[in-house]
Formats: sequence, structure tokens, C-alpha cells
Amino acid sequence: MAHPSRTTARVPLTRYRGGGGERARDVVSLEEPMEIRVRPHGAEAATPIAVTMRTPGHDFELVAGFLVTEGILGGWEDLLELSYCRSKTGPQLYNIVEARLRPGVSVDFARLSRNVFTSSSCGVCGEGSLEALDMAGCRPLPTEGTIRLTPEVLASLPEALRSGQSDFERTGGIHAAALADAEGRLDTVFEDVGRHNAVDKVLGEAFLGRSLPRPDRVLVVSGRTSFEILQKAVAAGVPAVVAVGAPTSLAIDLADRFNLTLAGFTRGGGFNLYAGAARVIDPSGVEA
Amino acid sequence: MAHPSRTTARVPLTRYRGGGGERARDVVSLEEPMEIRVRPHGAEAATPIAVTMRTPGHDFELVAGFLVTEGILGGWEDLLELSYCRSKTGPQLYNIVEARLRPGVSVDFARLSRNVFTSSSCGVCGEGSLEALDMAGCRPLPTEGTIRLTPEVLASLPEALRSGQSDFERTGGIHAAALADAEGRLDTVFEDVGRHNAVDKVLGEAFLGRSLPRPDRVLVVSGRTSFEILQKAVAAGVPAVVAVGAPTSLAIDLADRFNLTLAGFTRGGGFNLYAGAARVIDPSGVEA
Repeated sequence: MAHPSRTTARVPLTRYRGGGGERARDVVSLEEPMEIRVRPHGAEAATPIAVTMRTPGHDFELVAGFLVTEGILGGWEDLLELSYCRSKTGPQLYNIVEARLRPGVSVDFARLSRNVFTSSSCGVCGEGSLEALDMAGCRPLPTEGTIRLTPEVLASLPEALRSGQSDFERTGGIHAAALADAEGRLDTVFEDVGRHNAVDKVLGEAFLGRSLPRPDRVLVVSGRTSFEILQKAVAAGVPAVVAVGAPTSLAIDLADRFNLTLAGFTRGGGFNLYAGAARVIDPSGVEA
Repeated sequence: MAHPSRTTARVPLTRYRGGGGERARDVVSLEEPMEIRVRPHGAEAATPIAVTMRTPGHDFELVAGFLVTEGILGGWEDLLELSYCRSKTGPQLYNIVEARLRPGVSVDFARLSRNVFTSSSCGVCGEGSLEALDMAGCRPLPTEGTIRLTPEVLASLPEALRSGQSDFERTGGIHAAALADAEGRLDTVFEDVGRHNAVDKVLGEAFLGRSLPRPDRVLVVSGRTSFEILQKAVAAGVPAVVAVGAPTSLAIDLADRFNLTLAGFTRGGGFNLYAGAARVIDPSGVEA
């Protein structure tokens, strides 16, 4: 089992470029299962609630982000400790993380296990029914007092994200996400083979730093935007999402419903704005 | 609720291309939740086992592919009927599909709901523990009697897949998958906002046509390959996977363990071969 600080592996392969093959070595992104366990105060044992296939590294941020965007953690004060499990015979198990909760914080494990929820990228696993899509407890985000972006800054964000990626150039296959401010400055860039994991790491870091919600930030993601990315932004109180790729119909629906700003196809200095035009400072005065 | 034959939607947006914005309309891929229910013979009601965010269309193929690659259906004879649910007041509910099982086919619902399993793209939802990754019941695929491909045919597959996509050009954001034979001819191309859903539709169609396992086919996918894509190929008995994008470390591990052929970065006439060289006919005689 790899230590979580390793995020890539060198593998042997045969390279075909017309004609025959040539033996070579290349770097690929590590993907390993991580089990998330939750132990309410006073419980004898932790209960496994999810196994996610993730790129090792920043596991605690990933777990914190997962728990807060799934609604298991209501606020920073709900969390007592995150730790890797130890096996009985001693060694640290880097693929099992336990979250210990504060006294008084309860978890509806029955709700979590009632159904298996699979999504495009599985951001709302555990919310096992169509009704859960109503996202009980989530409210539309305000416009006033939240981030406003010029089109220039907005258009610059994906390139800034790409520059901040360390593994993409080497592996050609990893997603990235980060929060950015109104001047286009990025906070920490996180990478993962799973889109939703990269977002969980970003939001988990903010959560652990006690800075959620983040009305002054935009979430920048490397891929497409579907339901679960928007759901996570809503749950974390981040009012804008800028993506390199296309949105799905449901991503736009969610952005409309919860008053998020949503941009896609952010490439070559331009972008498409699908929702939340009030947060884009438009010199031409066009309102979407 | 849209009828499942609609796969895209036209949405209003504001297009920024330097300077101000311009109102426009564009086409995006539909993403809608679908609940999968299973009813064993003699059971009073169906049990919901998963909600997947999918692009409507070919829902029965998707459900069949999901059930067979999750190990819920062992063979074609286990399935009695697939149907959309009706609400009590009448209308067909196109987002709930029920699978009725033959007498004698049992389902371990406790196993399915014991934990929530989330993966990069959630292909093994329901397999809720690290041990489940051992994929009990799956065996390495044979080499003999399975498909063999020339490098030329292999390299041509992603382009053929792209040509067969109907929604990609319009939305810029949808995954595709298909089976192909040794001459590079593709069977039906399926598209979905979720990579794993596109693969489930492909394998589900083969399952419903009573043609699984498919030792004479290669699975072609538009994106990257991670654990769950390889897991599905193993479960369906398809011995080769060719992808446009990068593999993860775990995809390569699985290919090695179950004797699958795995190619990635299949672009511009070339590709990288990560596993299963015995199925690639190499005129130069290099063995990986």
C-alpha cells in the first residue's frame, strides 16, 4: 500500500506510433480505494459509510469535504478528529480514514445506507432517492455580498488552474479544482482521478480552515460540470462555478435554482455563461 | 419529466468572446436521475437499489448493464422483465425502472446497502468494502479464443467511435462507448453524461441480446480508464479495452490481474499498450 504522498506511478508499456511497438515507461495517476468511517461520540466502533476511488494525498481534506457536502458535518465544530486507522498488529492503514464526531452530533446511518446512490461522478452517493435531489436544507445563495467577476478574470481561471497542476503534464489524465478570488488568484490546487474528489479536497481544506461558506470565492474545475459539482458548491456555500468543459442540463437547473453563477467552455479567452449573470461585471451592460 | 428519447436540451446563455456578452442558445446534454428497483419473484414490492444520474435513452440497456456488472444478474435467464414504473394515478414514470427477477433468483439487499460505495465514476457502487475490490467470482479471462487486433485496427477505434456519436458535436460534453470486432467494425454506439453509464448501456445491450460474454469484442471508450471501466469489462467477459485517454494505476493493475488488453492515449494513429500484449498482432515481434 502506497503512502498517500505518492500520487503517481511509473509503469511499463509498449508504445505504438505506426509500425511496431517500442518498450517504454510512463507515469500514470495513482488510483486507490479509500474507506471513510464515521464514529459518533461514545460509539464503540466506527461505521464505514463510503469507499471512494481516489488519488492518494490530502485524504483528510477529501474526507472533510465529502462529509460536509453530504450533509453529515453541519459545521466545523461537529468534527473532533480525523485519523488513519491502525491495524491491530500495528501499521498505519493509509486507505482507511476515521472521522470522530463531537458529543451531541448524530448521524442517520440508516438514511445513508438505505439506498445506493450513483451519479455521473457519484457526488451524492448516500442520498438514496429521487426526493433527496431536492437537497433538503440547502437554500438559494444570496447575490449581495458575494463575489463579482469581470469577464477577463473569469476567462483566465482555467489557464491559471492548469498552471497550478503538478500531475497533469506528467500523466495526461487527472482532474483539478481550486477556489479563486475576484482578482483571479487561486488558493491551493488539488488534483484527483475523480472530478468530485478534487472538489471535495478543495472544499474540505476550506472547511478544515474554518472558512466555509465562501461567498467571496469561485470554484474552478478542469472538466465538465454535472449535478454533483453544483450540489457540492451549493452545500459549501460557494456561489460561482467556472469550468473548462460543458455543463449538463441538471447542472444549469441547479445553478438557476440555487442562484449560482455557472460558466462553461471557458477557453481561449471566452466562455459561455449559463446562470447567475448578476455576479459577472459586464461593461457592455448585457444582462443574460 | 422528459421522455427518455430526448437526450439534449436547448438552453439560453450569454456568450463572452472578449469584450461584452451576447445572448445565444446552445445545446447541452440532458442529465436526469433514474432510480433502479429490483423485485425478486414473489416479493410484494420492488426495492430501490440505486439512483444514477444519466442521460435519458436506452434506460433498459443501462439497467441491465448495471445489474450484470454489479453481479446482481448472473445470466440472461435471471431476468424476467424490465419496465418503467407507473404512478398510482396513471402516468408512466420514465425515471424509475423496475427489474423483475425469475423465480429462484435471490438478491442480497443487505450486501448492497451495507455500505455506500463511491468510485471515481461509481461503477462499483454497492460493493461496500475494500474487500469487495477482490471482485469475488471474477476470474482472469483466457487469451486463447479471444479477440486479436492489429495495431492499425486498434488505433482506428476511437475515431470510429467519435464518428458514431450523435450528441458530442452538438453538446461538446458527453461520453461514448461501443463494442468493436477484430476488423474495427463498431456495434451500437451509446452516449451518456456518465462514462460508466455509457459502458453499462453497451454491455446491457449485449446482455439483453444474450451475447455475453463477448470474447470476440473490444470495448472502446471515449474518456480515461479507471477501476470501474475495467471492472465492468471483466464482469461482462470482454477481454480488451481501448481508450482515448489515460489509464489510472488501478486500471492497469486490474488489466494485469484479469488478463485484459488495455490501450490508452489512442490518438493520431498511435497508442500506448499497458497490458495484454498477447492480443495485439505485432508485425515487429516486440512483446510487451
